[in-house]
Amino acid sequence: MASRSPLKPNAVILLSGGLDSATVLYWAYQNGYRPACLTVQYGQIHAREIQNAKKIARSLKLPHEICHVPMPWKGSALLDRKIKMPRNRSFNAIGHGIPATYVPARNTILLSLALGWAETLKAKTIFIGAHQLDYSGYPDCRPEYFQALQRAFNKGTKMGRFKIVAPLLKKDKAQIIRLAHRLGVPLQWTWSCYSGGAQPCGTCDSCRLRQAGFEKAGLKDPVQ
Amino acid sequence: MASRSPLKPNAVILLSGGLDSATVLYWAYQNGYRPACLTVQYGQIHAREIQNAKKIARSLKLPHEICHVPMPWKGSALLDRKIKMPRNRSFNAIGHGIPATYVPARNTILLSLALGWAETLKAKTIFIGAHQLDYSGYPDCRPEYFQALQRAFNKGTKMGRFKIVAPLLKKDKAQIIRLAHRLGVPLQWTWSCYSGGAQPCGTCDSCRLRQAGFEKAGLKDPVQ
Repeated sequence: MASRSPLKPNAVILLSGGLDSATVLYWAYQNGYRPACLTVQYGQIHAREIQNAKKIARSLKLPHEICHVPMPWKGSALLDRKIKMPRNRSFNAIGHGIPATYVPARNTILLSLALGWAETLKAKTIFIGAHQLDYSGYPDCRPEYFQALQRAFNKGTKMGRFKIVAPLLKKDKAQIIRLAHRLGVPLQWTWSCYSGGAQPCGTCDSCRLRQAGFEKAGLKDPVQ
Repeated sequence: MASRSPLKPNAVILLSGGLDSATVLYWAYQNGYRPACLTVQYGQIHAREIQNAKKIARSLKLPHEICHVPMPWKGSALLDRKIKMPRNRSFNAIGHGIPATYVPARNTILLSLALGWAETLKAKTIFIGAHQLDYSGYPDCRPEYFQALQRAFNKGTKMGRFKIVAPLLKKDKAQIIRLAHRLGVPLQWTWSCYSGGAQPCGTCDSCRLRQAGFEKAGLKDPVQ
């Protein structure tokens, strides 16, 4: 554990190092939660985000664990450079269908790990940064999925009464960026690009949505 | 991958190296499935079982992956030698309450990983060796938990229509051993002991249930 908050953690948050989970972390913190931060290295090409997650967790002096789960299979453009990453897509195209960046069972694996840590800590709340733009494409970002998974979590644990909380679920990227700005999220440490380079590529779906979000929010992205 | 069956895998099985999952594997195989075998090293003290899983998967020439998921937290006698392992308990005691060997969210994490591999392989069936004796104690071995998790899996994946199949759910240990014997399971390669020694301890719950099961089935345990 990197560092400890004086209070015992009362939640677990999936902290990727991206803009959304950093915003949820600051939102939770300012609403009285002291989340234990969990980052999962699952073989993503953009593992650079993990260094960002470290800085963000440290900024609030919260416990932080990095769990290494190298999946021995591929099947996603985020795991396998041989699978073509969508580039320069229109926002209409981004909003339809499940893209090649979908990682089979990713949120289920991540949330299960968060559940394991939460039960060990006796913390009942699990935060995740999923939101509207994701759930138009990724099946594991839809509200009915989170509801069903929460139900299974409560059937399959000793403690029960866990809640999966996704405070950004109904927000668009510009709304999230405005909220982040208001909460004082260190946006300069957030990382969105999928491509795995040292600088954001500017052409993957995640870069495109971030650019458009900052533009719509009328703010300057400190990462660019 | 250790070796490949000539047929494409049409299921994923959680293969621990124990008696139950080995029996499910042979049952599935003889019912026409060609499962891809998934073993998870999650920090269990009895990691010796993983070598057994390798032999069992190899005996049917099936693909086998070992996924290393060292959980950075403890909270179970199976993960932490400082937590007291129950010893020499009566079968009445074993059948009541959740024991110290319960691992928070274990089956949820394991089944989520199996789901990730299954979706990558386009395989719809996920086998697990959970059974009646477990579900009297472990909440993540109960039928209502598996039903709820299957529902969440089907909400949260691109492919959907997954089935979690636990063929031993309603059997007791003696019935499982008789079935294993009939199916030709290499029982000499199965490992049940929780204690992490080179020989079975004979006193942990898992050893006790195995002994009683062989006795009731009227068979000799080749491991002892």
